Amino acid sequence: MVRRARRNPRESNSIKQLPYRHLRNPYPALAIASEDEIEAIHHASLALLRDTGMRFLLPEAREILKQAGAQTETGSERVRFDPDLLIELVSKAPPSFTLHARNAGHNLFFGENAVNFSMVASTPNVSCLDKGRRTGNFHDYCNLLKLGQSLNTTHLIAGYPVEPIDLPPTTRHLDAIAALATLTDKPLYAYALGDVRINDGLEIAKIIRGIDEQTLQEQPSLITIVNANSPLQYDIPMLQGVLSMVRRGQPVAFTPFTLAGAMAPVTVVGALVQQNAEALAGIAFAQAVNPGCPVMYGSFTSNVDMKSGSPAFGTPEYAKATVISGQLARKYQIPLRASNANASNAPDAQSVYESQMSLWSCINGHINLIMHGLGWLEGGLCANYEKVILDAEMLQMMSEYLQPLSFAEDELAVKAIDEVGPGNHFFQSAHTIERYEHAFYSPLVSDWSNFETWQENGEVTATQKANKIWKQLLAEYNEPLLEQDCAEQLDEFVQKRKAEGGAPSL
Amino acid sequence: MVRRARRNPRESNSIKQLPYRHLRNPYPALAIASEDEIEAIHHASLALLRDTGMRFLLPEAREILKQAGAQTETGSERVRFDPDLLIELVSKAPPSFTLHARNAGHNLFFGENAVNFSMVASTPNVSCLDKGRRTGNFHDYCNLLKLGQSLNTTHLIAGYPVEPIDLPPTTRHLDAIAALATLTDKPLYAYALGDVRINDGLEIAKIIRGIDEQTLQEQPSLITIVNANSPLQYDIPMLQGVLSMVRRGQPVAFTPFTLAGAMAPVTVVGALVQQNAEALAGIAFAQAVNPGCPVMYGSFTSNVDMKSGSPAFGTPEYAKATVISGQLARKYQIPLRASNANASNAPDAQSVYESQMSLWSCINGHINLIMHGLGWLEGGLCANYEKVILDAEMLQMMSEYLQPLSFAEDELAVKAIDEVGPGNHFFQSAHTIERYEHAFYSPLVSDWSNFETWQENGEVTATQKANKIWKQLLAEYNEPLLEQDCAEQLDEFVQKRKAEGGAPSL
Repeated sequence: MVRRARRNPRESNSIKQLPYRHLRNPYPALAIASEDEIEAIHHASLALLRDTGMRFLLPEAREILKQAGAQTETGSERVRFDPDLLIELVSKAPPSFTLHARNAGHNLFFGENAVNFSMVASTPNVSCLDKGRRTGNFHDYCNLLKLGQSLNTTHLIAGYPVEPIDLPPTTRHLDAIAALATLTDKPLYAYALGDVRINDGLEIAKIIRGIDEQTLQEQPSLITIVNANSPLQYDIPMLQGVLSMVRRGQPVAFTPFTLAGAMAPVTVVGALVQQNAEALAGIAFAQAVNPGCPVMYGSFTSNVDMKSGSPAFGTPEYAKATVISGQLARKYQIPLRASNANASNAPDAQSVYESQMSLWSCINGHINLIMHGLGWLEGGLCANYEKVILDAEMLQMMSEYLQPLSFAEDELAVKAIDEVGPGNHFFQSAHTIERYEHAFYSPLVSDWSNFETWQENGEVTATQKANKIWKQLLAEYNEPLLEQDCAEQLDEFVQKRKAEGGAPSL
Repeated sequence: MVRRARRNPRESNSIKQLPYRHLRNPYPALAIASEDEIEAIHHASLALLRDTGMRFLLPEAREILKQAGAQTETGSERVRFDPDLLIELVSKAPPSFTLHARNAGHNLFFGENAVNFSMVASTPNVSCLDKGRRTGNFHDYCNLLKLGQSLNTTHLIAGYPVEPIDLPPTTRHLDAIAALATLTDKPLYAYALGDVRINDGLEIAKIIRGIDEQTLQEQPSLITIVNANSPLQYDIPMLQGVLSMVRRGQPVAFTPFTLAGAMAPVTVVGALVQQNAEALAGIAFAQAVNPGCPVMYGSFTSNVDMKSGSPAFGTPEYAKATVISGQLARKYQIPLRASNANASNAPDAQSVYESQMSLWSCINGHINLIMHGLGWLEGGLCANYEKVILDAEMLQMMSEYLQPLSFAEDELAVKAIDEVGPGNHFFQSAHTIERYEHAFYSPLVSDWSNFETWQENGEVTATQKANKIWKQLLAEYNEPLLEQDCAEQLDEFVQKRKAEGGAPSL
């Protein structure tokens, strides 16, 4: 057994991260269902949309679908799709798109084998080791944005990391999107809760990117995610938001809320049939509105705990559903989102093994947008500061795993092994010394010192260390430069819209 | 957002596990290196064994290899292999074998897409939340065997879960193997530390299985793992042990100790070249001794922390090395072992995310024997009771992930979705009620109650819950029945061998 040396006491305390990277998964996508099985899901979803159909609660949406050839009935919200029509509409969706940020280095590509991670989103509560759990608020919202900006593993903030419930609902989106636009230089997000919030978000995108309407429509600059009201329903505010997004060429991820046993059948395969039907119906609607507009296929299929009715995440069922969703999205050639999800109440071992089950399934399944990448707890009811950091470590490890190895002759090291020879060691070999500084992944959180050193240093667990790291990141946070002109325009816009009363309450 | 219901307070406290399962991985094996890249490793290892060769410290081993056609030199311990000879010897190894246990239901198949998990092995220390860390001892050794017997996820105890250092070294193996043979009915293991310990282990195997020598040789009943003294060396006690095993048809896993940057080149690919050379040389030796005898290819390639020299496990480098090892073993059609490894000092979040990185790589890479499946900490310097339970949960989740889904018409649930209809829920549907009890994975450790219930119940973390579970498992432990006759013979044998002085100290 190798003796583990003591850590060098002179080591600097500064936080070292991997660089910001646009990730690609160079390895093959996993397929756990056969082609026939994927076809079975496909045909079952088509049959469902043909025979049962889906409710589109917004009359304008039904009218658009009717014009496109779908079946509607007077006095009913139900829309039924002929399979050929559905496939024709879905096939208009582009296989990839780029989402633009005010910092062009943070533009994101969605499609092919791209991998993007986003912060935790849409939780009503927030917690940390120091202060415990509290209701979402603007202070914590801004802190989480700052962490999202500082952590190189965060590609996107896709939804409020925590709901700033202390802000008035009518103007909350203005403060929230303005904070997102100033505290980070990563792409923007707005909720599809009616058209006003989306339109305000798009105005802010134009202001901070300094672009006109035509450029906005050519360069997607704001993303949104809509959940179906599963089973088989899209509601009015969501459809209004979708219309506002899609008409101006902005990407929408259609994510059915298919928890097997609750809002979807108790079988994983049945839940996937329903997910597929709901996602395709949403995508078809978007393409009927604006053919060729960017969309995403959203997978959120998991199961509930049948004992308590609580949603469960990072389960074996979730893992299988996520990988099969990857197969479905590739069949339709549409970028895919899923989540780094867990159902733990604390940033403990459970939160991590459930997250890892989710994360590996996302990576194996070639998911393009891994939502809730950093900081999710309680199946989405809480954002947690320590989990943000534990997740950052896990995402860094995954980022490094996705860097392909070189098989150049010097890497094969036959000569180096020969020089060291039997029974010796490589610490001092020239081959080692030339490479050791950047040879291996260097962790953000993990403590690799030996037990005695770890004990002397206070037996700090990974979660406790994560607590120190987020505080240090916040202390060292630097707001990304926003041109004076843009900042003033943004401020004027927000003040004007607040004076106008913001958006209607929902 | 779904409201999470309170847990039913009448729920029973008994520990529920998944059933004991012989696992197969029905999904495709991952390949992260191209065929050319695998060939590059292959040819580099052959060149290394041809030009640099390997030290076999036991003269008898060198003589056997010389007779088989390898190059040896008088006065040197070095053995060099012609590539054709090496490939010819390696090709004699069988692609699979069955390891027999006294309980035939616990016989294990190694090869193809079989997945077997073993307990933590060979740690000098042991720890738990209650008593902290202490030196290995027979009491904890027996406790860990009992947990290994009780936990259905444990297929094999492959090495002492902790070294019983309080037992005299000359007779330790007798007490240790006798305890393994009585406290569990899973397959046996002995250390290849000279021939005496192996031969004693084989006698015990014959006694408890009630078989004669010929049956033993036809039905492998004891397994051992040998580590190369990397780089490029096999020592005398190990080679003696190998000879005793292989001559009697018992399986040996040849596992190079290739920590990149220490006992192997600092490049992962270089470490794999060395691993491949050392493993193939060991396998070739076994086949020269007894053509067709069962062997395993062992992968343990990881890296050291270049700041401290400490070994690191569950790193991105470990993940890549493990998956590529799978590709190599499949090329040679030899069963493969790797590990569920981590370098954490506590059963905390780090121990879990590092383990998950290891575990997913083992599953993705189709590793047949996942060593240290339950309870490893500190890179192998400590066995931990809580980690045994956390790992059991992770292995159960993996076991469930490996159960393929049914795509039968009823599972697709088109009719059930139609019956529930838009905007309703599935809790009360006939399709749900027929299936809900066994629809989903039920966790061993995870707490899926809502935050308020979890808080009322004392905010128990997964690690704290694991502490309660192992105590309950030990309290409920039942020794598996061993026939009176066998038990008496075993006792007689151990007493006789102790009286004879046991085995030489090493």
